[in-house]
Amino acid sequence: MKIIDEFKKAEIEILYEKADVYPYAFDTAPMKEDVILPLLVALPNSTEDVQKIVSICKKHNLKIISRGAGTCHTSGCKPVQGSIVVHFSKMNKILEINKENLTAIVESGVIVGQLQSEVGRFGLFFPPDPSNLKVSTIGGAIALSSGGARAFKYGTTKDYIINLEVVLADGTIMQTAKNVAKNVTGYNLTQLFVGSEGTLGIITKATLKLIPKPESTLVTMAYFNSLNEAANGVNNVIDSLLQPSTIDLLDKNTIETIEKFNPSGWLPYEAMLLIELDGNLDEIKAKNEKLKEILLKSNADKIIQASDEMENEKIWNARRSAFACTAKLKPNVVTEDVVVPRDKIVPLIKEIKKLCDDNKITVCIMGHAGDGNIHPNFALDFSDKEEMKRFKKVKDKLFELAVEMQGTLSGEHGIGSEKKQYLDLALDKTSYLYMKKIKEIFDKDNIFNPELMF
Amino acid sequence: MKIIDEFKKAEIEILYEKADVYPYAFDTAPMKEDVILPLLVALPNSTEDVQKIVSICKKHNLKIISRGAGTCHTSGCKPVQGSIVVHFSKMNKILEINKENLTAIVESGVIVGQLQSEVGRFGLFFPPDPSNLKVSTIGGAIALSSGGARAFKYGTTKDYIINLEVVLADGTIMQTAKNVAKNVTGYNLTQLFVGSEGTLGIITKATLKLIPKPESTLVTMAYFNSLNEAANGVNNVIDSLLQPSTIDLLDKNTIETIEKFNPSGWLPYEAMLLIELDGNLDEIKAKNEKLKEILLKSNADKIIQASDEMENEKIWNARRSAFACTAKLKPNVVTEDVVVPRDKIVPLIKEIKKLCDDNKITVCIMGHAGDGNIHPNFALDFSDKEEMKRFKKVKDKLFELAVEMQGTLSGEHGIGSEKKQYLDLALDKTSYLYMKKIKEIFDKDNIFNPELMF
Repeated sequence: MKIIDEFKKAEIEILYEKADVYPYAFDTAPMKEDVILPLLVALPNSTEDVQKIVSICKKHNLKIISRGAGTCHTSGCKPVQGSIVVHFSKMNKILEINKENLTAIVESGVIVGQLQSEVGRFGLFFPPDPSNLKVSTIGGAIALSSGGARAFKYGTTKDYIINLEVVLADGTIMQTAKNVAKNVTGYNLTQLFVGSEGTLGIITKATLKLIPKPESTLVTMAYFNSLNEAANGVNNVIDSLLQPSTIDLLDKNTIETIEKFNPSGWLPYEAMLLIELDGNLDEIKAKNEKLKEILLKSNADKIIQASDEMENEKIWNARRSAFACTAKLKPNVVTEDVVVPRDKIVPLIKEIKKLCDDNKITVCIMGHAGDGNIHPNFALDFSDKEEMKRFKKVKDKLFELAVEMQGTLSGEHGIGSEKKQYLDLALDKTSYLYMKKIKEIFDKDNIFNPELMF
Repeated sequence: MKIIDEFKKAEIEILYEKADVYPYAFDTAPMKEDVILPLLVALPNSTEDVQKIVSICKKHNLKIISRGAGTCHTSGCKPVQGSIVVHFSKMNKILEINKENLTAIVESGVIVGQLQSEVGRFGLFFPPDPSNLKVSTIGGAIALSSGGARAFKYGTTKDYIINLEVVLADGTIMQTAKNVAKNVTGYNLTQLFVGSEGTLGIITKATLKLIPKPESTLVTMAYFNSLNEAANGVNNVIDSLLQPSTIDLLDKNTIETIEKFNPSGWLPYEAMLLIELDGNLDEIKAKNEKLKEILLKSNADKIIQASDEMENEKIWNARRSAFACTAKLKPNVVTEDVVVPRDKIVPLIKEIKKLCDDNKITVCIMGHAGDGNIHPNFALDFSDKEEMKRFKKVKDKLFELAVEMQGTLSGEHGIGSEKKQYLDLALDKTSYLYMKKIKEIFDKDNIFNPELMF
């Protein structure tokens, strides 16, 4: 077969047997009825390989789907008709960790969790902390500006990207910036690529900003008898200026579901706040006392504070299993990701609950309350056509609600093809138009992730 | 006069007498021989006023120069032939400070220092801290992604912009995003406008991210007998993970010049580090001890630590007077702004010193050592043609050096028209090309700051 031979001749590693490419038809978003296989999966070893791949694809009018670990939940890396997948599993090297410059240079296939431990050995810290950090790649995190539980204090991936190497549609390599801490020299092309979901070019390398690693962390769990009291707790904690790294909120269904499938001694209250403080140990211990006081004043009914790393880890393991546990309730699970101004978080959660009750849909709601970022996890049975109809109603209304409350469609998972139909809800006509024009100047033939966004 | 009447009819406040518009021919960059006056200066009171201004200018093919306080040092807001200036002095309202959401919504003419004090009353903090904060506006800070001394810990203006309201070339109002803490819904238009120097549209409002205000700060001055020892001190301080908010470096000429015109008891050492720690008072006092130890081990010859706010303020007042004091050495002063990877800062300073010695140019060098961001302040006599020829050589070489050392032309002042000629040194051809295309899609008739960048 001509195209395969051409890849082989160019010495690009590829997979092309049906059994080998089959897994690349899926990501963590719900499976579609029509499974589209990629023509092949290319595994570049270098930026030059990526250039060759783009050149061959251009010649044969093939579409290119860039893929990290496929954990985006939004069908952001599913193949389309006439496409190949570029998978970055071989471009997984940390090229430099520079303690003096507080930077790391990495290839885009590096695993986020691995990056965190490697820089940790130098006393450095890469804060973005997606729940899937043990498998997700930095390239994917950049494509979606992934966040995670620590975004309240530390921001998301976008805040830690200094410079990107990208391969463009015409095969040229572009540096979006320089490897310097501050830069106002022309437009910010770097941030145009961050969060662009692989639609503008292929990210091959990134220069990351690192910060000093906090000495310790301690997690507090505070149980409340109502969502309102928990929300009031969030406000009081923010007001106190204790500046925790995490302010997460879990509803009763989430607590009970975790407890059912991953028993951790959690209590079935209406709401739980999970708050992490970081810094040096004495400092956090003092802050922990103050935190406890604030939470008690906010009517927390029960407060449990970790006293060491092991206790932290136990809590985090339970918290991170929320999605997997929800998946055990029913044959299928869908996680969503909406964001509203922080003061709208309880109204939104209540509306989602009501909506799901009215439509008999099982939902476990949790979220990064400190960021106004809510993840409802829906337990579903895709083969139940009636349920799926009701779920469609819930989903449509969910995004309408978020936008009505001055929020938007995604805080950290991106739009993918799953939420594309809702984009015009969230973007004003003008900004949509200019985004489209930007796509056209970088990728006029629409070869990169062609079915996303526009 | 037709155009003036049209502005009056549209009820736009304007200045048009020669004496009134004359000051707007200048900014803090060196004066040019050919003074170009704007046709008029418009003083909008609202976004609708700005829309009307754009509409009239379009009709008459007038160029538009947006102006905050004119403190950019780069001729970034000097009029061009056939232009009007839009001055934001009347759009100076803080519209909202939302403690729950940790945000502020402001008009673009708000003074940065005023914003800092107003949010400070709520225990909140807007970290960007340009030296001219008592006069510079938030609109200008956004246009240049201004930084300041605290960028080492807190980043620059770009890190605190959530959403912008902009008026585009066709007069439409665009929101670049939503007022939420996290957002991955289409491309990041916000960061395209941050640092765009008024070339893509007119920023009318901004939603700012705020953080909790640190309780206290304490400043340490450490004197060194050599630049190398001071640089080693910088590295050791960074290594210690004490995470100061400021790590500034001043050379002997800067120290002596400040001491000459603003006597502060500063000592004529080869180099001084100015390091600020922030946090709660007990915490910084403990950190201050550790800092002192580190600096002594790094061969600091003399260390002076402020013990209260008043002592801090005295040091900062002296530090912030560096530019003004240099201006007293000779009839004129030019400040520059280059940035290199942090580990290149001493090689760069040494090269600049040598360059200035060789060309008999007086220079006082200081900079944000923690960010690799260097500001040489050149004392000059513009009427001395020979000196200006020699200075041209120095300036050309300065930017070459920065780029050779993997750095770039500006960390926080922008490019303006002063550095436009050096842009191709710093940007690769491809990124320059795409920036130009971006300018074209937003402003195809080139009406906004038409002589900047391209």
